Amino acid sequence: MTVAYLGPRGTNSEEAALLYAGSEAELEPFSGMPEVIKAVESGAARAGVLPVENSIEGPVSVSLDLLIQTSNLKLCHEVVVPIRHVLVAKEGARPEGIRRVMSHPQALAQCRLFLEREFPQAEQVARMSTGGSVQEVARGGDLTVAAIGPERAQHLYGGEVIARDIQDARSNLTRFMVLAHEDAEPTGDDKTFIALKTDKDEPGSLFRMLEPFAKAGIQLTNVVTRPTKGWLGEYVFLLDFQGHRKDPVVAKLLDDVREIADELKIIGSCPRFPVEQYRDLLAG
Amino acid sequence: MTVAYLGPRGTNSEEAALLYAGSEAELEPFSGMPEVIKAVESGAARAGVLPVENSIEGPVSVSLDLLIQTSNLKLCHEVVVPIRHVLVAKEGARPEGIRRVMSHPQALAQCRLFLEREFPQAEQVARMSTGGSVQEVARGGDLTVAAIGPERAQHLYGGEVIARDIQDARSNLTRFMVLAHEDAEPTGDDKTFIALKTDKDEPGSLFRMLEPFAKAGIQLTNVVTRPTKGWLGEYVFLLDFQGHRKDPVVAKLLDDVREIADELKIIGSCPRFPVEQYRDLLAG
Repeated sequence: MTVAYLGPRGTNSEEAALLYAGSEAELEPFSGMPEVIKAVESGAARAGVLPVENSIEGPVSVSLDLLIQTSNLKLCHEVVVPIRHVLVAKEGARPEGIRRVMSHPQALAQCRLFLEREFPQAEQVARMSTGGSVQEVARGGDLTVAAIGPERAQHLYGGEVIARDIQDARSNLTRFMVLAHEDAEPTGDDKTFIALKTDKDEPGSLFRMLEPFAKAGIQLTNVVTRPTKGWLGEYVFLLDFQGHRKDPVVAKLLDDVREIADELKIIGSCPRFPVEQYRDLLAG
Repeated sequence: MTVAYLGPRGTNSEEAALLYAGSEAELEPFSGMPEVIKAVESGAARAGVLPVENSIEGPVSVSLDLLIQTSNLKLCHEVVVPIRHVLVAKEGARPEGIRRVMSHPQALAQCRLFLEREFPQAEQVARMSTGGSVQEVARGGDLTVAAIGPERAQHLYGGEVIARDIQDARSNLTRFMVLAHEDAEPTGDDKTFIALKTDKDEPGSLFRMLEPFAKAGIQLTNVVTRPTKGWLGEYVFLLDFQGHRKDPVVAKLLDDVREIADELKIIGSCPRFPVEQYRDLLAG
C-alpha cells in the first residue's frame, strides 16, 4: 500500500519517504501537507511523511499545527535526511550569465551567503517548491535563470548542475515524521511526542508542566511553542523526549503530566532515528 | 533620524514602523532583515523594526536568529499590528475571471480556507512580499491575476479591492520589535527578552533554567526554541517575561539564570504593548 508525501517528485520529502519505505515501495506525491494527512486518514495511503524540523530553519510550523489541531494520526517512525542543495540551470547555461535564481524562499534563505558571494547581481525569485523550480528551469528555454533544489530533482527533470553543496551550513538536516493509524511498539531506544496546553496564565505554569520530566530523569529532546491561533500570547507546547509511552517510567510520567496540564495529546512513540550516522558525512 | 523597516512600502512592517514612530517620522524601507539591522548598527537609522511573532504562524525565525547570533542591538520598543488581508486585482477585473492568486507563501497560507472556498480553481503563485505582489498586479495588465496583501498596499499602488478580511482567523496579530543601540527605561509595565543556552545535554536542563522564574513568581510570556544551527537537536531558548531588567526582582533573577545557563544574552527591556486594545476590533 501507498506511502504519501509532499510532492512534487524530487523534493526532500520524497527522499524521506524512500528512506522510510525503501525503493520498492509505492510512493505517491500530494500537493499539500493537509492532503498527505487526508490520504492516510481515508485509508488511501498506509502512512504519510511530513517534515517537522530543520537544523537551520527550526520547526516546520504547518506540519506541527496539523498534528496538534487537525489530525488524530499517530507518529510511527522518524527519518532524518541531510539537505544538500545544488544550483541547476538549463544545459548550455554559463554561471556568469545567470540573472535570476528561483526556489522556495526557505531554500533561498539557506543559500544566502553562497548567493551573495557568487551571484550578487542575480534577482531572487520565489517558487512554491524546490523540485518544481528545478523542473521549470530544466524544461524552460531561458539560459539566464537557475534554480536551487535537491540533486534528485536534477536527476528527474534534467538540466545541468552548476554548483553543489551550496547551503550555508554543512549540518543541514531535516527531521520527518511518518504518520499512521497506530504508533510503533517499544524497541528499547525510542522517543515520544506529545502536545500540552495549560489554561492557567500564571507564573510558573510551563515550569510546573516540565517538573515531572526532571523528577523522572527523562531527557526532553525538544520543546516547541506553537500559537493556539486563538489569541496572541496563548500557546500549545510540543515536547519530545526519550522513551516509549509503554515504558513504565514514561507511562507514570504521562499520568503526572495529565494531572497538571489542561490538555494532553499523545501523538505517539517510535524508534529514535540514529542521527549520529550523519556526523562523518557532514564533517567530510 | 530615520527608522528602518523591511520593505517594500505597503507591507505590515511599514504599518508597524508608522505605529512606533508616527506619521511625521522619516521611514526607510530595506530589502531584507539583515539590511535593517545593518542600517541601525552603522548609524544610518536610529531604530529598526522587525517582525518577531504572528498569532497564527508563530515565531518569525529569521528575525529571532538575527537577534541571537548576529546583532548586539537592544530591544527598545514593541508594537503589535492586526493583520488584515485584502484581495486586490487590476481595475476592471471580475472575481469569476481570476485564474491566479499571488502573494508571499505565508499570506497565501493565512488565507487558505478563503481561497479554497472562493477561488478553488485559481493557481497559487509565490512572491517574495505581499506589498510587491499587490504592486505587480495593480501595475500589470492582466485581469486574470489577483494578489493578497495589506489594504495599505492598495492605497499606495492602486488596483481594486475584490475582497476584504480574507484571513482565516480573525485574531491575526503580528508582534514587531523595535531595535536600537539602547533599550528602554522602566515604566512600571515592562517586558524583558533574553536568549539562553545550555551545553549540558542531560535530563532537566531546560527545567533548571526555568526554576528561577517560578521561584521569583515571574510570568514567562513566551518560550521559543531555536536551533543553534550547529547540529540537529541543539537549541537556544528565547524567553520573554514580565518585568524590566532594572527591577530588583528581575535583576536578581537574571543573576540566578546566569549561574545556571552556559550563555545568557539580554536582548533588552521595553514597555509592554497593550495588545488587549485589539480584543474589540477583532470580535466586532
